[in-house]
Amino acid sequence: MIQKTQRTTTSRMPSRTQYDQELVYSILDEALFCTVSYSVDNQPFSIPTAFVRKENKLYIHGSVGSHFLRGIESGLPVCISVMLTDSLVVAKSAFHHSVNYRSVILFSNAVRHDAFEEKALFFQELTEKMVPNSWEYLRQMKASEVNKTMLLSFEISEASARMRTGMPNDDEEDKTLPIWSGIIPIPSKKLTPIADENSIGIELPKHLR
Amino acid sequence: MIQKTQRTTTSRMPSRTQYDQELVYSILDEALFCTVSYSVDNQPFSIPTAFVRKENKLYIHGSVGSHFLRGIESGLPVCISVMLTDSLVVAKSAFHHSVNYRSVILFSNAVRHDAFEEKALFFQELTEKMVPNSWEYLRQMKASEVNKTMLLSFEISEASARMRTGMPNDDEEDKTLPIWSGIIPIPSKKLTPIADENSIGIELPKHLR
Repeated sequence: MIQKTQRTTTSRMPSRTQYDQELVYSILDEALFCTVSYSVDNQPFSIPTAFVRKENKLYIHGSVGSHFLRGIESGLPVCISVMLTDSLVVAKSAFHHSVNYRSVILFSNAVRHDAFEEKALFFQELTEKMVPNSWEYLRQMKASEVNKTMLLSFEISEASARMRTGMPNDDEEDKTLPIWSGIIPIPSKKLTPIADENSIGIELPKHLR
Repeated sequence: MIQKTQRTTTSRMPSRTQYDQELVYSILDEALFCTVSYSVDNQPFSIPTAFVRKENKLYIHGSVGSHFLRGIESGLPVCISVMLTDSLVVAKSAFHHSVNYRSVILFSNAVRHDAFEEKALFFQELTEKMVPNSWEYLRQMKASEVNKTMLLSFEISEASARMRTGMPNDDEEDKTLPIWSGIIPIPSKKLTPIADENSIGIELPKHLR
């Protein structure tokens, strides 16, 4: 369950902030990357990284030697942010230019998962998130690869979604000006795959077409 | 000048980290959004926001009433991160899947700019970054709009760029496997503009075509 707290309560344009679990999950499931922030002696540090959401947890991974993961695995408070940018909002005045976005802010603390099966399953889920239907096609995971990896999860409870949708909010007196206004969609598009030199003559698999 | 410090020195795959000013600037100039992190009593907070880079400063703005901006304008330490995601790196094994990205991490402290002309110029620069060649076409900025806006800058000195480019790094013994490997470009693309109801019959200006 998503809990609204003082830290997730926004003062500016509060109608853009929502505490709906399905909305939070849908943004997390569409985004491939998050930014994890933590603090040491009030000095903030941020790291962009890939993640997977499963049930009420957000998972990140890295090398067992990662300075970053070892810094937060003890349960330091972290703030995780995710943003999807959908379109540029082009108004009749510069002042009302904006961006349509869907974002999530999550306050949480890391829990480390050491069970082999849990880590192996995470690899499968992350791979399937990046490249759907590819897991069975790939060379099988080795135990040594799982053992080299650290897996951390963050409970998704103190979280909020913030978004802007729709057309520009031009001033009433500007609406009749002969200036074009609207939106420019800026989605991240998957383009045609480019083979490397080790794939010459190998057919592009169906899941990549 | 970019200064390498302990905080911007990375331990994992150090060859991916560079301290080259032109590279840092080029990433900042291509990205529209950054994530600003700060900390209060060791509790980190992160906010995604638009920005402009000019000379050796990164500028952000918002309402003069913004809780966030008022929290950091006093010069609290902040960490600003920017990431451009260029392609998914699809290896023959899940373990060597990766992402081609270009990112910047900047440690800095806010300086507030109250001069009217400086704020007005920032609006022009941000608008031109979002929608090139559009400034002259738009309804002119009003003094009241400039006055409602707070402008903060961050010196770009303690910064680093981190990137991955190129093809998958498959294990030597995997290279001959009959499994497709390569990259899938995932650029953010500007699609065809969509007019709002206040622009019916208004020709799409040349800078948006």
